[in-house]
Amino acid sequence: MEFAVSIDIGGTFTKLGLVSKLGEILDRRQLDTQDSRDEDSYFRALFKATEELTAHLDPKTVAGIGIGAPGCNERDGTVEGTANLIFKGVVPFRKIFQEHFPWPVRLVKDSSAAALGEFHYGGGKGMRNFILLTLGTGLGSGVVINGQLVTGQNGLASEFGHAMVDPRGRLCGCGRRGCLETYVSATGLKRTVFQLLAEETAATPLRDYSFNQLDAHHIFEAARGGDAVALQAFRTTAHILGAKIADLYALVEPEAIFLSGGMSHAGDMLLQPLTEYLDQNILHLFRGKVKVLISKLGGNEAALLGAASLLFNQPKE
Amino acid sequence: MEFAVSIDIGGTFTKLGLVSKLGEILDRRQLDTQDSRDEDSYFRALFKATEELTAHLDPKTVAGIGIGAPGCNERDGTVEGTANLIFKGVVPFRKIFQEHFPWPVRLVKDSSAAALGEFHYGGGKGMRNFILLTLGTGLGSGVVINGQLVTGQNGLASEFGHAMVDPRGRLCGCGRRGCLETYVSATGLKRTVFQLLAEETAATPLRDYSFNQLDAHHIFEAARGGDAVALQAFRTTAHILGAKIADLYALVEPEAIFLSGGMSHAGDMLLQPLTEYLDQNILHLFRGKVKVLISKLGGNEAALLGAASLLFNQPKE
Repeated sequence: MEFAVSIDIGGTFTKLGLVSKLGEILDRRQLDTQDSRDEDSYFRALFKATEELTAHLDPKTVAGIGIGAPGCNERDGTVEGTANLIFKGVVPFRKIFQEHFPWPVRLVKDSSAAALGEFHYGGGKGMRNFILLTLGTGLGSGVVINGQLVTGQNGLASEFGHAMVDPRGRLCGCGRRGCLETYVSATGLKRTVFQLLAEETAATPLRDYSFNQLDAHHIFEAARGGDAVALQAFRTTAHILGAKIADLYALVEPEAIFLSGGMSHAGDMLLQPLTEYLDQNILHLFRGKVKVLISKLGGNEAALLGAASLLFNQPKE
Repeated sequence: MEFAVSIDIGGTFTKLGLVSKLGEILDRRQLDTQDSRDEDSYFRALFKATEELTAHLDPKTVAGIGIGAPGCNERDGTVEGTANLIFKGVVPFRKIFQEHFPWPVRLVKDSSAAALGEFHYGGGKGMRNFILLTLGTGLGSGVVINGQLVTGQNGLASEFGHAMVDPRGRLCGCGRRGCLETYVSATGLKRTVFQLLAEETAATPLRDYSFNQLDAHHIFEAARGGDAVALQAFRTTAHILGAKIADLYALVEPEAIFLSGGMSHAGDMLLQPLTEYLDQNILHLFRGKVKVLISKLGGNEAALLGAASLLFNQPKE
């Protein structure tokens, strides 16, 4: 039996899993990414967790360490520290891990890791062309074309979250205005609610929350209760996403588009207006053919499984 | 030595070439697509031209017949007649050719054929990720990712010309409004000129042409002479194209974007505002890195070479 250690680095939590080649997560660890005071203490905590996960294994059965991270450069094996992460600048993750452990180390963008998980162990099994969108704090994307992950010339591809919706629109973390993820993500949904609160006058319990208090769950709950503002926020989100999916679909003609991440739990509140929009607005050729599916793996599971799969399934090049 | 017969089906002309494996076009024929009264006479003309091209060859040295056509279904080997073509409905091109000739027959979308030509014999040689846009009457696209053509689940991918610019915008041949090709193509450029003639009051020789008289060459000429309206039309075109290229680039991170087709001959009148726009508006990560190149193969050459390459370079699956 072969195993891999899988690490999913997020702004809030860093999750580790011991994954079997069959896609079972046999053991887990979790770190609070923000708990570490500096880069050194973060890596000490990561090493300790990795050692715990592998302590009882014959080292020969460990295929390697797979790391999914935002802003990582797959070819160089580095992670660029973002505002959300404890470390700053370009950190040579692969090198640091390889100096500490005897195993191969592979890095992949977090959303691409999730797409690989979907491909090898989830709903994308057997598909040669699909797109996975992770709707969380931001919007991540992973694309599989002709049975291979789209990584781009320098491992920087798949930034669908930064497709342009409106160049004079909402300020994005990337420094520009109007990127898709400022509308279509948990944060985007909240911003849409606040825009609706400003523009409309309908009474809604959502008027009782400050911007900092309000989170996606409040909006989900209000929508489930039939709140007009919350439902409208989902429709607006679905239409903006639908327009961009229509472009993407016409380019890639995928077998399916998977949604994962927190916002995908909205289910039909999002899916129904999205499907309606696509049926009305996509290139006629594709009408009624677009399959938008909720990922059966959770976003975190998918990323852990996908990062591990890098060690089990070497590229065929 | 191996040869292929290559057929590039267009609304105006159908071009045929005898192509060597080295990418030389050794002989050519051309039919006026509209000259044929019906499907039967069109195929008789195609067969005759194919027979002329292969008459002097040992049939064993003919690797097959490659056909590039708009609206073709690569898997089924059919071409769907469009308003521009003499035949109507779904025509089983592969079957018809295979019944008449002893050679394998492969079909590919015209713009994908051009991308394959670029990949095997043009500027895309050695690249694993690039995009080719053919700017002619419409906007065609061919995408190579991880060294393979993007065909989609049913051979219908690569419809970048129908990316949405403005859902309330210009009527498109596809029945929707606001598709990219209604702005970025020879026809789109002309429509932009007419919009500017309506909105602005500047004197320009372009006011002396009816819509039916005006063609892209008049606009090229006026722009080269410094005409403000013509130059503005190029800038508008470049900005709309730039916005869509920025989305596409962030998704694919290609090594280069090639422009071919009639409008690419505008050279710097298009390239300069396009590059400026991209430097200012693309995701910061990619600033200054986008390479937009004019294809060195002509659009027709590329399509003929690419369709032929289907016979020489079998997919590795």
